[in-house]
Amino acid sequence: MKLLLTGFDPFGKDKINPAIEAVKKVPDEISGLQIAKLEIPTVFFKSAEKIHKAILSEKPDFILNIGQAGGRYGITPERVAINFDDARIPDNEGQQPKEELIHDDGENAYFTQLPVKEMSKAIKEEQIPSYVSTTAGAFVCNHVMYQVQYMIHREFPNIKGGFMHIPFLPSQVVNRPGVPSLSLADDVRGITAAVKVLAVK
Amino acid sequence: MKLLLTGFDPFGKDKINPAIEAVKKVPDEISGLQIAKLEIPTVFFKSAEKIHKAILSEKPDFILNIGQAGGRYGITPERVAINFDDARIPDNEGQQPKEELIHDDGENAYFTQLPVKEMSKAIKEEQIPSYVSTTAGAFVCNHVMYQVQYMIHREFPNIKGGFMHIPFLPSQVVNRPGVPSLSLADDVRGITAAVKVLAVK
Amino acid sequence: MKLLLTGFDPFGKDKINPAIEAVKKVPDEISGLQIAKLEIPTVFFKSAEKIHKAILSEKPDFILNIGQAGGRYGITPERVAINFDDARIPDNEGQQPKEELIHDDGENAYFTQLPVKEMSKAIKEEQIPSYVSTTAGAFVCNHVMYQVQYMIHREFPNIKGGFMHIPFLPSQVVNRPGVPSLSLADDVRGITAAVKVLAVK
Amino acid sequence: MKLLLTGFDPFGKDKINPAIEAVKKVPDEISGLQIAKLEIPTVFFKSAEKIHKAILSEKPDFILNIGQAGGRYGITPERVAINFDDARIPDNEGQQPKEELIHDDGENAYFTQLPVKEMSKAIKEEQIPSYVSTTAGAFVCNHVMYQVQYMIHREFPNIKGGFMHIPFLPSQVVNRPGVPSLSLADDVRGITAAVKVLAVK
Repeated sequence: MKLLLTGFDPFGKDKINPAIEAVKKVPDEISGLQIAKLEIPTVFFKSAEKIHKAILSEKPDFILNIGQAGGRYGITPERVAINFDDARIPDNEGQQPKEELIHDDGENAYFTQLPVKEMSKAIKEEQIPSYVSTTAGAFVCNHVMYQVQYMIHREFPNIKGGFMHIPFLPSQVVNRPGVPSLSLADDVRGITAAVKVLAVK
Repeated sequence: MKLLLTGFDPFGKDKINPAIEAVKKVPDEISGLQIAKLEIPTVFFKSAEKIHKAILSEKPDFILNIGQAGGRYGITPERVAINFDDARIPDNEGQQPKEELIHDDGENAYFTQLPVKEMSKAIKEEQIPSYVSTTAGAFVCNHVMYQVQYMIHREFPNIKGGFMHIPFLPSQVVNRPGVPSLSLADDVRGITAAVKVLAVK
Repeated sequence: MKLLLTGFDPFGKDKINPAIEAVKKVPDEISGLQIAKLEIPTVFFKSAEKIHKAILSEKPDFILNIGQAGGRYGITPERVAINFDDARIPDNEGQQPKEELIHDDGENAYFTQLPVKEMSKAIKEEQIPSYVSTTAGAFVCNHVMYQVQYMIHREFPNIKGGFMHIPFLPSQVVNRPGVPSLSLADDVRGITAAVKVLAVK
Repeated sequence: MKLLLTGFDPFGKDKINPAIEAVKKVPDEISGLQIAKLEIPTVFFKSAEKIHKAILSEKPDFILNIGQAGGRYGITPERVAINFDDARIPDNEGQQPKEELIHDDGENAYFTQLPVKEMSKAIKEEQIPSYVSTTAGAFVCNHVMYQVQYMIHREFPNIKGGFMHIPFLPSQVVNRPGVPSLSLADDVRGITAAVKVLAVK
């Protein structure tokens, strides 16, 4: 069994993105589940194209996309992705869609196939704060979660897909007073614990 | 040169106190400064007595007390201690003073002798959130900071003393949603960076 | 033209719900738009039944449901409702659904027909904090928003429906330290400003 | 009996200061206590000079200074002022002292003569969030609180002095997401409730 694990590159004012940094440090195998890792650009559509190619070459059983959610206090598996792009800042290629559908022929929203409550519980058992989120926002994170679901529903019905957000790193909040953070080591342990839930299913 | 570094034991509902855990993991020598470590009880007066004995036996040049400040987002060197005990919860021996002076013949407050801005800057250069605080509260943390200053002003004029607060650990906020945390590894790195400022003075 | 404006009764540990309190104080007419007001119970399904009856009797052009979102800092028009009930606490009749669909034959989610960005802008122009939210949660608030959309898509295609969350009142956070609030007067002004946007469409 | 009630003018990026706005709206008499109101500039030393003149002309029995503390969730009577100026931003005349004593011959700190716990309790009984603070910071608010105490201890031993901080207004946080606020009406009610405690002493 194989998991495709993706992380975004840095965006906005940040020079680092905990998502890709954490993904790099996750083990290559977790409880017998092979981990194929992929860096994706924080760019609408292009990120999805890169995942599509990786699905064809890697043929994963699971997809888990990791993204940064500045301001959150813990690791948050996402419940649902919506058919909606609305960007507060430009993506890494300058695109800034406003109140747009992602796919005219897609569902309004898709629910993850992953057991998000169990994943969150496993993260908390590692002594890392976590809760299940019901919004991935409307920027590239939600876009990618939605796109993966769209592909699953159209082309890859046997893949189970999902998304997790992780907080800023401590280094990212040194000049953001009053904003919470989580260490990279805890990100890695948290992601690993969540993936282990998938491995033993 | 020698630093006496103290950390409190757990109190309230918590089974762990990051202060003593971090103190244990700080190196025994930092840039030529010897580190003498001491666990102190979260108990009014008894904590100070234990420090007094350690001063006599260790003859330190610096004293740095570390305490937990649940709810803070970074490591916070304290500027000032006040002559005032006012406990929201009982200490570890059931004492709960309300609006009481610590010493009738002490100053209203004492300022630290430590270079708190430089210490905070050094912590931030380690990519760990930090700011200088102007209140150590009115529980045992402020009490200990005040008591150390009282001793310095009465008996040990050559010692430089100070206090730093550190946030909850991630494990402590697993069931405290919306409360920030910092990892033990970052506590240790932050304390070490602050102590290095003292070492090179 | 007529707007059906609903507010929930108190739930959980609170003896008051700013939603129904604010609804009561909104004017009965705003820029020519008649306001029909309705108190609804914080109860899965029963809340929706009560709204269904009111739609039949009042024949509104717009429906706006107001709910409390403890912990938010401003008034938040909601973008989307999801086909999902998951209750952290029981509703006012003891029901506590866990990870359940609301309607087997409903869409995964429905987007509001209301101009939420304009509404949020109008609230901010009243000097009241506001932002558009992409999650109404998974308790009775999301349930009602979803149910209204389900009715609109099945039975009442000419009605435009939507939902707004408002923060705790100051009285509700007196014993919830570190939790933000908004006054009832600002709730009323904010709702009125948002409704005015609908009136002039 | 007479209370001198002061409020600061706007400073930093803000065009309004809730302190002086609230002071203006407090009744001119509360439970038999006459209220003399004074606007003071957010300027080190000059603010204190203006208060000194007002003490000579008004001969108050109590002094209560009101200041803005952006980021706080409730009204906070202050326990203590420290002999320390350290400004993160310039005051309204461009002064920006760094780690300076206010008075070489003053105490390190002065405690308020006002019953801050009773005042906070009275504010909470008005259903407004409040707690006693142990720091007024190190900008002009702490400066004024310290200066008033310095005058009391030198010249006016019969006056009882104190300070209360109030949060941002909602209008001030419209473009400060995630920052709490309190309405002007609640500021006025809270200050009035606190002053009533003094009136009945």
